[in-house]
Amino acid sequence: MNDTPTTLDAMHTQVWQRLMRGTKDKKAPENQPVLATAGLSGGAEVRTVVLRAASQAEARIEVHTDLLTDKVAELRADPCASLHVWNAKARLQTRLRLRVEILSGDQVAEVWANVPEGSRAAYGPDPAPATPIDTADGFARVPAADRFAILRGHVEEIDVVHLGQDQHRRALFRASDGFVGIWLVP
Amino acid sequence: MNDTPTTLDAMHTQVWQRLMRGTKDKKAPENQPVLATAGLSGGAEVRTVVLRAASQAEARIEVHTDLLTDKVAELRADPCASLHVWNAKARLQTRLRLRVEILSGDQVAEVWANVPEGSRAAYGPDPAPATPIDTADGFARVPAADRFAILRGHVEEIDVVHLGQDQHRRALFRASDGFVGIWLVP
Repeated sequence: MNDTPTTLDAMHTQVWQRLMRGTKDKKAPENQPVLATAGLSGGAEVRTVVLRAASQAEARIEVHTDLLTDKVAELRADPCASLHVWNAKARLQTRLRLRVEILSGDQVAEVWANVPEGSRAAYGPDPAPATPIDTADGFARVPAADRFAILRGHVEEIDVVHLGQDQHRRALFRASDGFVGIWLVP
Repeated sequence: MNDTPTTLDAMHTQVWQRLMRGTKDKKAPENQPVLATAGLSGGAEVRTVVLRAASQAEARIEVHTDLLTDKVAELRADPCASLHVWNAKARLQTRLRLRVEILSGDQVAEVWANVPEGSRAAYGPDPAPATPIDTADGFARVPAADRFAILRGHVEEIDVVHLGQDQHRRALFRASDGFVGIWLVP
């Protein structure tokens, strides 16, 4: 995967190979992309997330979160979001434009059952995330199955930029035309 | 700077130290943050940028761009944006909420004069960035002083999360109260 992708097909294939590797390899840049959402009062919000699933066949990715985080409120107000990875070694920027579906409760019970015990407390701080507190540790970590959510991002567009030594290449793949891809000026 | 910041002051100081180092050290994660903006038709857009300046005294950061990029159009429509850095080694997420001013022409002539010859072509592809083209190299690189712009981000809030081994800490610093800082639930 250190080959420079020079065709549209190769760029598209490499995007999904890297995303799928990112779901397993904690050291891959694709393991920790950022997710950008429209801010509730304008602008944009962005935070690091952990990529939990990626499927080229279904053109979707998944991220886990606590239902009480700001990003869930932002996605309820506007489900359009962007997932971004900068792979410095490959000099490759990948951006997925997503329509995000929020799954919780019975829809995620099976996935919750497989979340390791030690990781569950990440989904239920009390009080809720972003609440002001007097001391840095002024909160409890309480695993809360009813606050566990999957953000399922349906990929509508993929924008890839490769910054090569000699040449920069940029390609756009759209769900609407089956991801055949076109070149864009970088 | 590998010390774990445990006080509000230490967290705030470290944010600016890291950003300032990022303007000089190309290997620092802070050299290549992402900038998220509100999308023109909803959602959010996000891309890697290069941090060119950071000043704690003036509470601002700067990024260079081509006036014809989508991000400039997005910032003209909504100047609120977020700059994000994930420093994996320090396990530190830094987010700056910005109000972005777009400087060009005479305002940037002095800075343009110091952009190395070899870097200038990044500011004037013809046709404009994101134009569809038939082949990956179907564009010319023409240095264009009149398209060079500085995005000056005035920092309104800084949200920092440190994922420590034993404890996670999150702090918020606001321009409106002189960046004294408060703790938040991570």
